[in-house]
Amino acid sequence: MGDERRDPTVGELSEGSVLRSILERLGESNALVGPGDDAAVIAAADGRVVATVDTLVHGPDFRLAWSSAYDLGYKAAAVNLADVAAMGATPTALLVALAMPEATRLSFVTGLADGLRAACRDLAPGCRVEGGDLTVSDTLTVAVTALGALAGRAPVLRSGARPGDVVAVAGRLGRAARGLRVLFERFTDAAGHPVPVDESALTPAERDDLGAQLRPSPPVWLGPEAADGGATAMMDVSDGLVLDASRMAVASGVSIAIESALLGEDVASALAGGEDHALLATFPAGRQLPEGFRRVGVVQAGGRDHVLVDGRPYEGRGGWDPYQDWDAGTG
Amino acid sequence: MGDERRDPTVGELSEGSVLRSILERLGESNALVGPGDDAAVIAAADGRVVATVDTLVHGPDFRLAWSSAYDLGYKAAAVNLADVAAMGATPTALLVALAMPEATRLSFVTGLADGLRAACRDLAPGCRVEGGDLTVSDTLTVAVTALGALAGRAPVLRSGARPGDVVAVAGRLGRAARGLRVLFERFTDAAGHPVPVDESALTPAERDDLGAQLRPSPPVWLGPEAADGGATAMMDVSDGLVLDASRMAVASGVSIAIESALLGEDVASALAGGEDHALLATFPAGRQLPEGFRRVGVVQAGGRDHVLVDGRPYEGRGGWDPYQDWDAGTG
Repeated sequence: MGDERRDPTVGELSEGSVLRSILERLGESNALVGPGDDAAVIAAADGRVVATVDTLVHGPDFRLAWSSAYDLGYKAAAVNLADVAAMGATPTALLVALAMPEATRLSFVTGLADGLRAACRDLAPGCRVEGGDLTVSDTLTVAVTALGALAGRAPVLRSGARPGDVVAVAGRLGRAARGLRVLFERFTDAAGHPVPVDESALTPAERDDLGAQLRPSPPVWLGPEAADGGATAMMDVSDGLVLDASRMAVASGVSIAIESALLGEDVASALAGGEDHALLATFPAGRQLPEGFRRVGVVQAGGRDHVLVDGRPYEGRGGWDPYQDWDAGTG
Repeated sequence: MGDERRDPTVGELSEGSVLRSILERLGESNALVGPGDDAAVIAAADGRVVATVDTLVHGPDFRLAWSSAYDLGYKAAAVNLADVAAMGATPTALLVALAMPEATRLSFVTGLADGLRAACRDLAPGCRVEGGDLTVSDTLTVAVTALGALAGRAPVLRSGARPGDVVAVAGRLGRAARGLRVLFERFTDAAGHPVPVDESALTPAERDDLGAQLRPSPPVWLGPEAADGGATAMMDVSDGLVLDASRMAVASGVSIAIESALLGEDVASALAGGEDHALLATFPAGRQLPEGFRRVGVVQAGGRDHVLVDGRPYEGRGGWDPYQDWDAGTG
């Protein structure tokens, strides 16, 4: 298990020294008060702050055989940055609650910090990890809180879609689900347990899908652009287009009609695949879509079905529900 | 294990129905945008937001044989409300990331929600749970993010203590540690595993200590009062007075001299016992302490020792460090 002297476990270190190793990787604070006090103080110039939290748990949400520490940090940041973007806001700070077994290597913790920082750099420059918490747990768990600034904009809710609006998406759909399929079909042993990924065994397209699953790259910067471009409703597509569109439809009291011809070649993955963290938004008809958004359908008056695909109720699998879909036995 | 029809497990329910059961218990939102969208939007009237996160993990931080769901919710909120208070701020919102085994009963989840709400009601009226996240985990984990408002005040940092300042505490010290001792000494079996608490076997004082451990009641409202009263430094005493005072001393470049005669009868518990979430603050000499604070010592110029007790370096156990103190074998 590596050289213990050079890569100690967190159980061999004090909380303070683990924390210092993390902080060294995170770069300079951008906050009014950054890490190290009882709480951070973050600017919220227009008198409001957007706030969301999402957790990644070893087993249901990731497997260490498949995700590196860097991947895990990147994904934990990205999924939360996407939620801030989906309100029309720009991320300003992350707080990270990291619970991990005592046997976790320090190199894992610093790799995770590198992934958090890289996701902020790539997806939300100016946003940093400004606080957090370390705890011991039998189950590796990363809960990230993301804060964001609306800069005077009205938040874009799920409930604002109106009949006649154009339904549009920014970011790709179905890739993360295909990447998960690659993992389950190609990198499990006979008992169904994950085994390490051999990227050399993959086609470029498969590697691309795998990257979307392990290090999602949501178009965070397009959230504020959608708000400025008149979006009437917006949300993050985390559980599949159909399931998330049905949530938007219910919140708005409308039906959402999707045209499968606008979803690319792999329609099934685009409709049902989760974890892409694309942005789903509606815009007034006739308004030019912000660059990066593409039309996928239209909002209709509420009917019996919340989502229609090519005019018909969707018959396939609806998306991901952690309490229904996770088989703990293969965790 | 109860009547499954009347008290289903979360594994038998959809995420949405678990969420609805929680939201029903939390009361009306006080936020600009409350639960149900991609993120909450919280008022931050003076253009800043205070933000902190703390996690309670089954095993190191609580045992279900000892803590009810209500206790757990109460404590998870209270420890975070105290961190906001320690900056001189008033809590405005909580976000709760709850990761739990599929076998968790719905009644447990609603009990936890009741505890979260009660802590807000008792300690920070106006603050509510305004968002969160549900996940499946083998290890029950509650990560709470607390946000707060400074209302124009400068945040009170750990680093502002100056030689000559009075060192003061609000809230009781040592009770939570005595409560933990009651649990370990009286409510474990021969193998050291926790067994349910029989309160009828306890004296009133023991019940009082147990309550401080299971449902801490930090003086959250005194945080802003300390700031208004001129506090030069402040922090939450979560890991014991000596250990936390030494952190303040290091941050401020001073020594903190504590007088044991000012600590009540159980000096050892007051010095080393963690989890009280009292407020430790320093005030300019000669300034009247805000009501609720009492003097426990004085700030001196930085010397070889960060904390002195009755003029001597403290020789006892310093406090709680999760990576050093938790024996996973008895979890």
